[in-house]
Amino acid sequence: MSAPIKFPTPQKQGSPAQQLMELARQDMAAVDSLITDRMQSPVGIIPDLAAHLVSAGGKRLRPLLTVASAALCDYDGSDHHKLAAAVEFIHSATLLHDDVVDESDLRRGKRPANKIWGNASSILVGDFLFAGAFNLMVETGSMEALSVLSKASSVIAEGEVKQLAALRQITITEADYMDVIRAKTAALFAAATEVAPIIANRSTAERAALRDYGMKIGLAFQLVDDTLDYGGMESALGKSIGDDFREGKVTLPVIRAYQQAGPEEKEFWHRVVVEHHQIETDLESAISYLRAAGTLESTLDQARKYASDARQALSIFPKSDWRETMRDLAGYVVDRIH
Amino acid sequence: MSAPIKFPTPQKQGSPAQQLMELARQDMAAVDSLITDRMQSPVGIIPDLAAHLVSAGGKRLRPLLTVASAALCDYDGSDHHKLAAAVEFIHSATLLHDDVVDESDLRRGKRPANKIWGNASSILVGDFLFAGAFNLMVETGSMEALSVLSKASSVIAEGEVKQLAALRQITITEADYMDVIRAKTAALFAAATEVAPIIANRSTAERAALRDYGMKIGLAFQLVDDTLDYGGMESALGKSIGDDFREGKVTLPVIRAYQQAGPEEKEFWHRVVVEHHQIETDLESAISYLRAAGTLESTLDQARKYASDARQALSIFPKSDWRETMRDLAGYVVDRIH
Repeated sequence: MSAPIKFPTPQKQGSPAQQLMELARQDMAAVDSLITDRMQSPVGIIPDLAAHLVSAGGKRLRPLLTVASAALCDYDGSDHHKLAAAVEFIHSATLLHDDVVDESDLRRGKRPANKIWGNASSILVGDFLFAGAFNLMVETGSMEALSVLSKASSVIAEGEVKQLAALRQITITEADYMDVIRAKTAALFAAATEVAPIIANRSTAERAALRDYGMKIGLAFQLVDDTLDYGGMESALGKSIGDDFREGKVTLPVIRAYQQAGPEEKEFWHRVVVEHHQIETDLESAISYLRAAGTLESTLDQARKYASDARQALSIFPKSDWRETMRDLAGYVVDRIH
Repeated sequence: MSAPIKFPTPQKQGSPAQQLMELARQDMAAVDSLITDRMQSPVGIIPDLAAHLVSAGGKRLRPLLTVASAALCDYDGSDHHKLAAAVEFIHSATLLHDDVVDESDLRRGKRPANKIWGNASSILVGDFLFAGAFNLMVETGSMEALSVLSKASSVIAEGEVKQLAALRQITITEADYMDVIRAKTAALFAAATEVAPIIANRSTAERAALRDYGMKIGLAFQLVDDTLDYGGMESALGKSIGDDFREGKVTLPVIRAYQQAGPEEKEFWHRVVVEHHQIETDLESAISYLRAAGTLESTLDQARKYASDARQALSIFPKSDWRETMRDLAGYVVDRIH
């Protein structure tokens, strides 16, 4: 297991995400204000539910990547704020619909919106945010940015359906799984970064580089999430773990553990995933199996590889505070602690 | 009660919808082929579910309005096919999400998609179709058409949420109800017709006229649907009536009947709508109340008024086969029999 990357202590500078947020403070304030503005509606449930989700101080990682990429491209307009808000709206719409799809009572230890306002509201407010994302994009006048985010939206929906079809399929291949997360998670990260060079009229090479950076960050992010759902590499069990396990979602650590498992362990995974019959101690057993197999570690190594690719992708840009902080962010995505 | 409008017998020419479909045969074949093409996905459930909904030979009324409006505007490109397909995809996505929102076992006597493939698939395939609609619009390169359909999508979602909030509210005003149907139904009809003069580069006046035509057709269409849900003006009860009633949806005939109802009838509506406690004979009682109050008739008269406005809106265009058939269609929307 690789040693955790050491970051400056929070007292001095904060995490790379905080540093980037600091660099982008003015931009992100503009994005926040757009988000708040566009959630308004005379139909009260829309701002209520959207606020629960969008303004509840989420990480705003995706819109942060859009404004950071725009800064890296020396973009001097204001359309990146609209695109960043659009990216967050697409993400939020997806989360709202996922909550209904997943049927969980808790997600990361919190009650999902549909358990408070009902499935119907979550579906319809998700649609409202999704349409709102396109309204924002239209206002930028950039058909190319719109095309990138529109295609990403198709790919995300397709990835979500594919994930649904893969539910409780313990024998899903690693390649198929990577296709799923490339679509359902990484595609939006890639679009979030790619739209910046587009509106900044930068070269095809820079556009490809930023798309690659976003894609690799997204893959790393999802794989880390997969390990965190089983407590990551921490020995103490967090309170908000096991969502994927309880929903029967087969993720990379499980796919790899199952492939090398003996008959008894195979039977365990078959029961808890395929038959979806789980008892209270099963999550702990699953974690033990994954640790013994070393697949949480190998998944995290895979994430580190993607983070390193993401750092590398930015080499095309000259050294700058923005570039270095975006590079640091790639490492942070892997070594973040929730 | 006004006498039903007489149409030529089907053997000769068919209904105005069929006549319009005949005029637009080549266009609609192109739209159908686009629809089929864009529903494809390696994820099998997407084409399966989409086909159940989209290619199951629906009326295709909205895309027909787009291609007819384009013909009326002498449009000679092929982008109207893409916009027509996009309109149908937005409509289909809305239907899929509505099925989950409404939680009905039957809709117009048929099993809704979510009862066959599950809520999760209906939500996600709806998202896929919605994103697909935007991909089609992007391909036309018309930011103005995209803007119109994107805004309509917001308005539709807002209208759906408003309808949800109005569920089981027997005291909703007629004005509030008209706001709901203007948003949830008529906005897409209006957008479907407005995009045609946009891509055909026609005048603002013609654009406004076609938007008005679509809006009024949409309002007429919804009000007729409201009466058909209670068997319309037919004396025999159809098999697929009572969906709105069972879901506690308060529509114009009910709003008007409640306003003039005596204490006993008010109590009835309160029980079946607000308390949502219904017994088997209640639908029949509701129909009797509505007939006695004459509100199915007055709602249909209101629809005829909108249909007449729709016909009038086309006066700005010179006489042509397209214009006359589109005018006839306005009447047909009111006097159609399902």
